[in-house]
Amino acid sequence: MALSEFDLIAKYFVACGAPRADVLLDVGDDCALLHPPPKSLLAMTTDTLVAGVHFAPGVDPESLGHKSLAVNLSDLAAMGAEPAWATLALTLPQAEESWLEAFSRGLCQLAKTHGVRLIGGDTTRGPMSITIQVAGFVSPERVMRRSGAHPGDLIYVTGTLGDAGLALLARRGRHLPMALRSGIRRRLDWPTPRIAAGKALAGIASAAIDISDGLVGDLGHILQASGVGASLFVDLLPLGEAVADYVAATDDWSLPLAAGDDYELCLTLSADHQEQVEAIAHTLDCRLTWVGLIERAKGLRCVLPDGKHFDRLPNSYDHFGAGS
Amino acid sequence: MALSEFDLIAKYFVACGAPRADVLLDVGDDCALLHPPPKSLLAMTTDTLVAGVHFAPGVDPESLGHKSLAVNLSDLAAMGAEPAWATLALTLPQAEESWLEAFSRGLCQLAKTHGVRLIGGDTTRGPMSITIQVAGFVSPERVMRRSGAHPGDLIYVTGTLGDAGLALLARRGRHLPMALRSGIRRRLDWPTPRIAAGKALAGIASAAIDISDGLVGDLGHILQASGVGASLFVDLLPLGEAVADYVAATDDWSLPLAAGDDYELCLTLSADHQEQVEAIAHTLDCRLTWVGLIERAKGLRCVLPDGKHFDRLPNSYDHFGAGS
Repeated sequence: MALSEFDLIAKYFVACGAPRADVLLDVGDDCALLHPPPKSLLAMTTDTLVAGVHFAPGVDPESLGHKSLAVNLSDLAAMGAEPAWATLALTLPQAEESWLEAFSRGLCQLAKTHGVRLIGGDTTRGPMSITIQVAGFVSPERVMRRSGAHPGDLIYVTGTLGDAGLALLARRGRHLPMALRSGIRRRLDWPTPRIAAGKALAGIASAAIDISDGLVGDLGHILQASGVGASLFVDLLPLGEAVADYVAATDDWSLPLAAGDDYELCLTLSADHQEQVEAIAHTLDCRLTWVGLIERAKGLRCVLPDGKHFDRLPNSYDHFGAGS
Repeated sequence: MALSEFDLIAKYFVACGAPRADVLLDVGDDCALLHPPPKSLLAMTTDTLVAGVHFAPGVDPESLGHKSLAVNLSDLAAMGAEPAWATLALTLPQAEESWLEAFSRGLCQLAKTHGVRLIGGDTTRGPMSITIQVAGFVSPERVMRRSGAHPGDLIYVTGTLGDAGLALLARRGRHLPMALRSGIRRRLDWPTPRIAAGKALAGIASAAIDISDGLVGDLGHILQASGVGASLFVDLLPLGEAVADYVAATDDWSLPLAAGDDYELCLTLSADHQEQVEAIAHTLDCRLTWVGLIERAKGLRCVLPDGKHFDRLPNSYDHFGAGS
């Protein structure tokens, strides 16, 4: 017997994530009812993943549940916010219990890890897509925007770059040594939102963004919003073993520079904070690497190891652009 | 030349809706930044409309923009909340400027009417679907839940019932006199969220829900959440001229009882408040009609004009149920 829409919601998404005292009412009424903390700003963002565009329809549903929430939490991380609530709009061609069970497991586990409660949503029939919205809290004096970068600021990135892009190449047929495959696959399918790094650097960083569309494109948003330029030193880019091998073999820097889906953070901060940041870096469970400088001269210059500049920067991912 | 994703957002959805002092940052960063009012609860809800399921792909985009927001505002109305913020996740097969222009006009106009600001969103390429999330404010002592109905409470509905369902029948080929068509079409394509009624009755009503899936199904949610039953008197149901004609001709009550998409409110309230409610009704721009009684005996009884009960209640709309 087919499950009804209401049974579906009740079965897989009630009591999903961490219980929270600020949630008065979650799934099961016309609206959720929430008690935002006084004096904090509320940070809100939403992201959609569409089957056939952002993921293959046959992808492991547990990793999809994880990733759907992770890409949203990554946006909160980029503001320095503490995650709190999520809603889920889930569109499916049919209600398959095994799929739903695995999807909700991936989503609810990550929610729990970050203290997030699923407070509501909507399930509809149609071509598969997932829209999640998350809300978090950040105090006004700690919030990181894109517009705060100043000439002289240092540019940092978390983690390593290009792993998810390489995993996608591998999935499309590029040969990779077996030993390197599983690590980068995990980076593509199970991205880690850098919440801890975002919170640790909030109040210190002058600007931040999450690298969902590639470093060049996303750093470009900081430059545009801040009215500045930058130099990136490609030999400083933090690379995992697989991407380092790929770059060495191909001399192609487009993966760490422009492939999306890593969900690392790019942050700028005054050189005055450098010592403090190096101390914070030791407390994080990911690398934090200096990769460039904010400059007065507009535009982004990617400096190669020999000191030359790239002639033509690789594009970032853009859903409706001519290049996509 | 194709517009890029970022140009799209910038062009049609920046400064959409009413300016609000509590919006510190809207479209254009990783997250929106908001300042919720102290002492209010935050009410949040999300709804998805999918092409081919909730609307025909060729539907007028301006009405679609309106309706996508209206169905969400209707959920806020049902909690007695004051609308504040909206996010839009828009998935489109391609970026057509004329479509986007009309869609955003419909959405942003309704947002403005209700003092709502579009604070963020995501545009992706894929099969057309629209997910909107709205947030509003309501004071804890005024909020209307589904669970507050008591035996003896009166059941009221706003507006008229079955109009949208009849418009859908007409669209599928049922003949209707020309004079009646445009009014009910408007009810289907341009629903009015009953924000004013919700706010006026908040603090008085014991329970409320919006009638998106049909009166029987949605009242059923109140009964279930409140642990009560009810009798509905079908000859009291408020009908527009077209639906009244249809019922007279067919003796089929399923449209006012079970057709969805009207987005009216169903409310319950103690008989002690009846006089107060009749006074409020005069101040509203929609009808407010007494249609039944909350009772101790579980289940929903639909009483026909001759005093007999329906043998079999029509089902509500259910996306994944066996009946859909």
